[in-house]
Amino acid sequence: MIRVTYRIETPGDPRAMADKIAADQSTGTFTDLPAETDALRARHAARVEAVTILDPQPTPSLPEAGGPAGPVQRAEAVIAYPLDSIGTDIAALMTVTLGGVFAARGLTGIRILDLHLPPEFACHPGPQFGIEGSRRLTGVAEGPIIASIIKPSLGLTPDETAEVVRTLCDAGVDFIKDDEKMMNPAYAPLAARVEAIMPVIHDHEQRTGKRVMYAFGISAADPDVMMRNHDHVLAHGGTAAVVNINSIGPGGMAFLRKRSALCLHAHRNGWDLLTRHPGFGFDFRPYQKIWRLLGVDQFQINGIAAKYWEGDDSFVQSFADVTTPIFSEADRALPVVCSGQWGGQAFETWRRTGQTLDLMYLGGGGIHGHPGGPAAGVRAIRAAWAAASGGLSPDQAVARDADLRAAFGKWGEERRV
Amino acid sequence: MIRVTYRIETPGDPRAMADKIAADQSTGTFTDLPAETDALRARHAARVEAVTILDPQPTPSLPEAGGPAGPVQRAEAVIAYPLDSIGTDIAALMTVTLGGVFAARGLTGIRILDLHLPPEFACHPGPQFGIEGSRRLTGVAEGPIIASIIKPSLGLTPDETAEVVRTLCDAGVDFIKDDEKMMNPAYAPLAARVEAIMPVIHDHEQRTGKRVMYAFGISAADPDVMMRNHDHVLAHGGTAAVVNINSIGPGGMAFLRKRSALCLHAHRNGWDLLTRHPGFGFDFRPYQKIWRLLGVDQFQINGIAAKYWEGDDSFVQSFADVTTPIFSEADRALPVVCSGQWGGQAFETWRRTGQTLDLMYLGGGGIHGHPGGPAAGVRAIRAAWAAASGGLSPDQAVARDADLRAAFGKWGEERRV
Repeated sequence: MIRVTYRIETPGDPRAMADKIAADQSTGTFTDLPAETDALRARHAARVEAVTILDPQPTPSLPEAGGPAGPVQRAEAVIAYPLDSIGTDIAALMTVTLGGVFAARGLTGIRILDLHLPPEFACHPGPQFGIEGSRRLTGVAEGPIIASIIKPSLGLTPDETAEVVRTLCDAGVDFIKDDEKMMNPAYAPLAARVEAIMPVIHDHEQRTGKRVMYAFGISAADPDVMMRNHDHVLAHGGTAAVVNINSIGPGGMAFLRKRSALCLHAHRNGWDLLTRHPGFGFDFRPYQKIWRLLGVDQFQINGIAAKYWEGDDSFVQSFADVTTPIFSEADRALPVVCSGQWGGQAFETWRRTGQTLDLMYLGGGGIHGHPGGPAAGVRAIRAAWAAASGGLSPDQAVARDADLRAAFGKWGEERRV
Repeated sequence: MIRVTYRIETPGDPRAMADKIAADQSTGTFTDLPAETDALRARHAARVEAVTILDPQPTPSLPEAGGPAGPVQRAEAVIAYPLDSIGTDIAALMTVTLGGVFAARGLTGIRILDLHLPPEFACHPGPQFGIEGSRRLTGVAEGPIIASIIKPSLGLTPDETAEVVRTLCDAGVDFIKDDEKMMNPAYAPLAARVEAIMPVIHDHEQRTGKRVMYAFGISAADPDVMMRNHDHVLAHGGTAAVVNINSIGPGGMAFLRKRSALCLHAHRNGWDLLTRHPGFGFDFRPYQKIWRLLGVDQFQINGIAAKYWEGDDSFVQSFADVTTPIFSEADRALPVVCSGQWGGQAFETWRRTGQTLDLMYLGGGGIHGHPGGPAAGVRAIRAAWAAASGGLSPDQAVARDADLRAAFGKWGEERRV
């Protein structure tokens, strides 16, 4: 059985709505049909296994014309779908259990809270590298993987980008990525970026013994083009790629994962549309399960005091979600803590995500914009993590480290946590 | 320039929010960067070209914790993105101009209203068959293409499905499709369905000279699997496929279209999540443009008095959208009018969609569930369209046609329009 937990909101009876959804998503239509026999229903119908009534909500999540003003009733419902009726294909799973439910008339909201998949779904490849492989490829055996991003996001030529890469390598980062918006524009084509950047990565490795992981933006709607991009990165010694999962879709991801030798760093650009309204859409938990099964190795999940709308509690839950096994430890993704990070948030991140250092911590402006320059930005972040994991308070850490003190001086007022 | 029209909602100044979105989606980050020069911004920054202030809205669309209670300010803003910064790749377009905007802090809603693409985007393949090709392949030179769907949606074996196909062929339909939820389940694998169904289609053609178009559900997350499905359908003489566009994503669609010899019938399962909240998400217009460029031939768009939440005005607008050229007449998709259709809605459909017969009219329960059986169901629908396009009223049509009278007798009370 495939079990999906929905939070249902309706002016009517939420139990009846759960029954309607189960029927709509299996055998039903708007009128009785002679061929829809009891035997057929017994074998193939989705079943409501549990309904938990929640408090009513004063106003409906979906303000539809002619709809109710409120209050509306709410319930959590678990619906079980026979595996035999769907199979293990991800597109079938999405179509039957996830996509269709948002269309039901009479709902004023519905949110997909979780997805429990039977062991047959372990047929999907899952992450090729995940946490272990990310550590192996970056050579970071312990501690957080310290990462940065090319800034400005757009507008640099390949040679200018390579200069930023050189600066960041010298600054001591473990990982660098293209902005998710950087793919293959005419003024900085991917092929030319690879050819300009990889020599810098190799030169740095020759000089220091450290191979920085660079994730190139290889996303393309056409999977053949994306594979050419992948192959070009690989041929030049690259080890990673940024993949805009929602912009390529499950098909692009499945195609890439089957053929990929790169560590796949997922940017969930567009995800906010699916989750931002609390009464309508997806929680992150079911969503990230699907993308991990499809092969995401590293998952961007924002961070404490992020620059976007998402709050800290949501980030903390996302961190737990991507690091909780679906079928095995190997299918966990490396959490990428990002968005407005500069080190000051290390303390709260450490405290709230289970006191683990199995993460990537990504500073963009927090490294490039440090008053002492990028090397000081990286040192400040490393100092913050050492202090946080060593049990120091931010004040104690600031007292001991000048770079971190400078970072707090610049960003601590608005972003100290 | 790529121009995107957004409806922005914020407790602050909507002009300032439009500027922030333009900056976020091009060169900006949360702190000033030395390398972000004025020259770079001049070349690559997105620009707000027009802002039209709308009436305030009493409450925010996104009820965020700690957010404003209302009222909130609203504006329509046109933002222009330099083509040179994005290129013509659909994944890049989605990432830069569409996906990212939903993340901005300080918004209480944002909706993408339209997308104006420069002629360079005509590089995408667009529909292979579209309206003309659908007519050619079905042999329906004029009038609506009358379609039905296998019912019950799920649960039939391949042989049982073939029996339903035989009944529908005998009933006189031009087109039959798998339910979007039917892909490749263990009890009715696609390969076996094709092998059971296509002989019925061929036999019917031998006997009557009419080749019914059958659209098989070939969707799969793995594009290689989807192509195997496609090839199997083609090898057995099939001419069409149902594609669940959101469940395969742009990558799956681009891959399929490049290799496809089948007419691609799009089901937009999951679309409701992207559009149902009026203050947050996408209008259908920009969405369908993307999928048509990727290759959709036939687009399901609900219908008058549909069984789902969508209202008639939205359907009417969708009909206009899919039939409006992006770059040429050939990139129009065949509108598939569906969901709860039984013929009674033909009159209002005719009146409101420009008095055209260039459409597919799909009855599921409305054909299978007709009191006189499926053949009477098809006759009733054909009679309704003949009457509607001939200028008759529903009452006049019912007076002349017994099958249509029976349909009105069964469904007219609740669904007469």
